[in-house]
Amino acid sequence: MPGALAVSLGDPAGVGPELICEAWAARHTRSLPPFFAVGGPNLLAAAAKARGLSIPVRRIADPVEASGVFTEALPVLGDRDGPYRPGEPDREGARLALASLTMAAELAKHGSATGLVTGPIAKARLAEVGFAHPGQTEFVAEACGIAAEDAVMLLAGPNLRTVPITVHCALSRVPGLLSVDLIQARAAITAHGLRRDFGIASPRLAICALNPHGGEGGKFGDEEVRIIAPAIAALREAGIDATGPHSADALFAPHARDEYDVAICMYHDQALIPLKALDFDNGVNMTLGLPIVRTSPDHGTAFGIAGKRQASPGAMIAAIRMAGEAAALRAGADSAPR
Amino acid sequence: MPGALAVSLGDPAGVGPELICEAWAARHTRSLPPFFAVGGPNLLAAAAKARGLSIPVRRIADPVEASGVFTEALPVLGDRDGPYRPGEPDREGARLALASLTMAAELAKHGSATGLVTGPIAKARLAEVGFAHPGQTEFVAEACGIAAEDAVMLLAGPNLRTVPITVHCALSRVPGLLSVDLIQARAAITAHGLRRDFGIASPRLAICALNPHGGEGGKFGDEEVRIIAPAIAALREAGIDATGPHSADALFAPHARDEYDVAICMYHDQALIPLKALDFDNGVNMTLGLPIVRTSPDHGTAFGIAGKRQASPGAMIAAIRMAGEAAALRAGADSAPR
Repeated sequence: MPGALAVSLGDPAGVGPELICEAWAARHTRSLPPFFAVGGPNLLAAAAKARGLSIPVRRIADPVEASGVFTEALPVLGDRDGPYRPGEPDREGARLALASLTMAAELAKHGSATGLVTGPIAKARLAEVGFAHPGQTEFVAEACGIAAEDAVMLLAGPNLRTVPITVHCALSRVPGLLSVDLIQARAAITAHGLRRDFGIASPRLAICALNPHGGEGGKFGDEEVRIIAPAIAALREAGIDATGPHSADALFAPHARDEYDVAICMYHDQALIPLKALDFDNGVNMTLGLPIVRTSPDHGTAFGIAGKRQASPGAMIAAIRMAGEAAALRAGADSAPR
Repeated sequence: MPGALAVSLGDPAGVGPELICEAWAARHTRSLPPFFAVGGPNLLAAAAKARGLSIPVRRIADPVEASGVFTEALPVLGDRDGPYRPGEPDREGARLALASLTMAAELAKHGSATGLVTGPIAKARLAEVGFAHPGQTEFVAEACGIAAEDAVMLLAGPNLRTVPITVHCALSRVPGLLSVDLIQARAAITAHGLRRDFGIASPRLAICALNPHGGEGGKFGDEEVRIIAPAIAALREAGIDATGPHSADALFAPHARDEYDVAICMYHDQALIPLKALDFDNGVNMTLGLPIVRTSPDHGTAFGIAGKRQASPGAMIAAIRMAGEAAALRAGADSAPR
């Protein structure tokens, strides 16, 4: 029996549970790989009902049952459960979210799940119940024994993939945080990830400039000359197809997007603005550099619309499909003749 | 006889001349207002031929002839001319570009043209022949007796309008350049411009944050708290419908774009990335705050594809139409009963 992906609930008061149900309902039309939710069978049944979905939810005792059950019912592993109170986050829910995430990550780490898809959490809520990480990415990295700085965030939509080199820091700190080593290290992890998890044999990396028009040769800003161009040269010497520095404003135009597989961006909004402008409802956050496959829908808990049948399932569906494809590629690579 | 717009050639070795010809050829299908080119009848005829367009080009001696001629031929004012050498910029061409720009701006300033549309120039080339301005915007502002800092760049496409508060400066300088006064002044000019030139009675201004997630209440960056929020408060007190600070990554998603008429952005790429990602071939650069109407296609000379029938005329056509609509609104306002 083939394996299945583990999907954590996210905050049960957010849109995670209803979107897991929507994804299962769309498993045939969207060609989704087998997956199981971790924790909350009653909660998921209630979320399905609130969403207007008549779907069977079935508790399983072991992940190996998941893919057999998957064709007939949404498989849910584990005892942990709770009441469904959409839009009303509380500590009980936060504890359930954390338990689901912890267990799902462990299952993926030990190979009992083919990969991990994480539902959206509210970081501040989880912090109240002892979650000490800036976000799920860092939590999962630590669970896998990987330093947080070696886990790279890839944002992927139908039209674009981007990686932010710096993430959650003030814009004023970005120029000081950039270095040849940092860009080189994250770009190399990205190139490896595109080969391993997307099957792109020679990934084309477009490296963004930091300054407008790439600084116009040092006229406004010299980070391109001092930092970004040397990082590109080092990447090319290492055999990676990296180009740039490219003016960021032109790089996301339709014809430009055909020329690369991923845009390596210098800061959060440089990566997120084009992705959300183009692919808002279908963006996936994937963590590269981990021993496990991990994806997440690129949206938050959306407490304000949870339980109201308004949240788009596009990103959750895309996250599950992307994780499934990556897991299949890894399994194929493992079983290929050496 | 109604007036006509003056269109400057831009660098004659760039795509300007061929796109002026394309726009004239599309005058009926795209409902374009009357316009005339300034300078270069032989050059424009050669550009049309290279583009594969069989269109009549007719020299006029006075702008008042333009709208009469426009239905039958592309009207061209002025003696200045030169050879058509696409992709081969030289000083002779730069001098022609500067003469065309200077004359077209003067005509608009004195009311002999209803507005000004500027073809793309190469700043470095024009600098070689004595052009001392950072760009055409500053040149036109000075020609109109307006301080450069009171001329505001609006980028407009079919899906989005944006204004960058800071423009051609290093990203590291942006946080230091932002101030309550600067944001307030440029946003107020923008609001006035949207009323006057777009006929939007109560323009809705969405003011972007500088930092990712708007700084999350000061966690990474305090410019939202110190500068942007107070500027918004001041704008609202002045009766302007300004909201924010909005997280920039979410602001350009499809549903978010319905909620405002213009996004006020803190730096160049924040304004240009979403515009070019969404509206690359149809972006218009309009200068607000001037006594004249001035637009420009939001692209450069594109020397590499000039004369090769590859350049899209979408932005030139959009720039002419937008200038015509703004000129008509201003004419209507001037003739309206007081």
